[in-house]
Amino acid sequence: MNSVIDINITPITHSRVNDQSLENIAFGHIFSDHMLVADYADGEWKNIEIMPYQPLALSPSLAALHYGQSIFEGIKAYKDIAGNVSIFRPNENFKRFNISAARMQMPLVPEEIFLDGMKTLINLDRNWVPAFKNHSLYIRPFMFATDEILGVKPSETYKFIVLLSPTGPYYSTPMRIYVEEKYTRAVTGGVGFSKNAGNYGASMYPTAKAHEIGYDQVLWTDAFEHKYLQEVGMMNVFFIINNIAVTPSLEDGTILDGITRKSAIQLLKEMGLEVAERKISIDELIDAHKAGLVSEVFGAGTAATISLIKELKYKDYIMYFDTSTWTVAPALKNKLDAIKTGNEVDSHGWMIQV
Amino acid sequence: MNSVIDINITPITHSRVNDQSLENIAFGHIFSDHMLVADYADGEWKNIEIMPYQPLALSPSLAALHYGQSIFEGIKAYKDIAGNVSIFRPNENFKRFNISAARMQMPLVPEEIFLDGMKTLINLDRNWVPAFKNHSLYIRPFMFATDEILGVKPSETYKFIVLLSPTGPYYSTPMRIYVEEKYTRAVTGGVGFSKNAGNYGASMYPTAKAHEIGYDQVLWTDAFEHKYLQEVGMMNVFFIINNIAVTPSLEDGTILDGITRKSAIQLLKEMGLEVAERKISIDELIDAHKAGLVSEVFGAGTAATISLIKELKYKDYIMYFDTSTWTVAPALKNKLDAIKTGNEVDSHGWMIQV
Repeated sequence: MNSVIDINITPITHSRVNDQSLENIAFGHIFSDHMLVADYADGEWKNIEIMPYQPLALSPSLAALHYGQSIFEGIKAYKDIAGNVSIFRPNENFKRFNISAARMQMPLVPEEIFLDGMKTLINLDRNWVPAFKNHSLYIRPFMFATDEILGVKPSETYKFIVLLSPTGPYYSTPMRIYVEEKYTRAVTGGVGFSKNAGNYGASMYPTAKAHEIGYDQVLWTDAFEHKYLQEVGMMNVFFIINNIAVTPSLEDGTILDGITRKSAIQLLKEMGLEVAERKISIDELIDAHKAGLVSEVFGAGTAATISLIKELKYKDYIMYFDTSTWTVAPALKNKLDAIKTGNEVDSHGWMIQV
Repeated sequence: MNSVIDINITPITHSRVNDQSLENIAFGHIFSDHMLVADYADGEWKNIEIMPYQPLALSPSLAALHYGQSIFEGIKAYKDIAGNVSIFRPNENFKRFNISAARMQMPLVPEEIFLDGMKTLINLDRNWVPAFKNHSLYIRPFMFATDEILGVKPSETYKFIVLLSPTGPYYSTPMRIYVEEKYTRAVTGGVGFSKNAGNYGASMYPTAKAHEIGYDQVLWTDAFEHKYLQEVGMMNVFFIINNIAVTPSLEDGTILDGITRKSAIQLLKEMGLEVAERKISIDELIDAHKAGLVSEVFGAGTAATISLIKELKYKDYIMYFDTSTWTVAPALKNKLDAIKTGNEVDSHGWMIQV
């Protein structure tokens, strides 16, 4: 692949790829030989480099550590049986990254750095893309403020980095979910739709409280009434109610516009299901459950793709589901996996070959 | 000063203190010779060191950069004419720091590290405390997550650091303030009361929008109706209405529990004013302004102490004030300054000598 940008490549002298098996490694623990780094200063991106994965010398007054201008994306690449490596819908992540950047008053990253840079990096480290079933290469583009001044103002300098992390299958057993009615993830006018670091740190305490009573994640509700359902942990959420797939709509700006979410919406429609993007309240869900109309509930996100939910607790009302009887979510997951791994024709043009 | 903790001190070989004048230097640009660094791992704080101020070798997978577990405090120390150095109410910052830590699912920092460590550091770098009028030493304790794993979960390791930055007077001309009615800083159930990095990054875009139309800062309003006044930029806000000092109350958890705010409340009472901590809406403020009852409006924060507000714009209604006629805010600022610099007896026990 030829890049249209000038990337200075400093290769490693000895690859670490054979230091461990790439089979069944845990999510986000191992990083490939190289990383892409670009600097923003004086109003432009410069010093676009691919270099060995290594620590950075960062000032303790680094603006990102004090004032949180820090955003990221998560993308996956897959190796097919012929050895070809393809990335799942990276253009969508590129668009969302720059939406996050704008909200956090950070510079936009051009396509040539984000997408072409990513492809050049993956091509160089293609031995790090696991070829095992259900394995993938997790791609982490991120950007953070690098001014070394304590005044609260948008940084004038930034670093954009892409890391690559081979990852094994995400063994997700069906989840127990706690419907949050006290803590808030996001509110209209805030930053819930942007993939900024602070949203994640802020969610950890409520999630830890849910863990304490045996639940895996929280299902976030709206900030005003703690009534309208938003997203589950770090995933979007779908409910199959009376044979209609319902997922919370995005218009309030509180929910992440997930790439897996939008892919799921399209595939569910192609599978013949009606899909409704709309507000849905916990009361409506409980009423539907009491009437026996809620057949499946699942999360959709990059890390776990489709995650089944076997239990939903709201106050004293607990919904239990026998996920072994489900048909929609498992079929959706299989279809997504088949497209990603090249076992099904990519009729949507979602896979971008490296 | 003897510390009750064991701090390993690696002194600089040559002080930078004479490399530049400490007079009139801008806020947060210059750092003293040393910094305090402590590491949290295996459930305990260890490696408590004072070392030369220097860049840190940090992994690009550093958890704080990706998931925003990052909190800070801002404190000031002053040198009196006799050369004694005293810190303004650091115990209050210590308490608030650990409240922030708890909300962000981070470990608490013990008093021996936060306060005694800070004092030991300042004592070592006491030549960096400017002795000029209205100058101070800005103290920045902060903590961030240091795990090098991309899975979203509370980090198991952290760094706590204290930086010292000499700073000149904060020349704040009276401010023009835009009352925000679209963007949101915080909501009940969220993290508005905690001093975490993400709150600041999230505020930069709305603030930049206000700058574009000529305003210095935004006055945040509640997330639900954009009606109840919260705080201004990075400061708490006070309104003198009909000779009563009104400041938004803290019970919704959306407003920072400012140390300057609580000091101002106490001093205003001692100056004979009635002080009301309560909800106040923009409608009430406008009605009072129309009735000629709003005499003064000001911000209260560590960086600028007391900042006069000469203009408040809400939709098409603009309130103008002639700050030259004010008596309360200037007297409050003088009183606070006099206590901090030792020109007035510290009857509250606010100054902690190093």
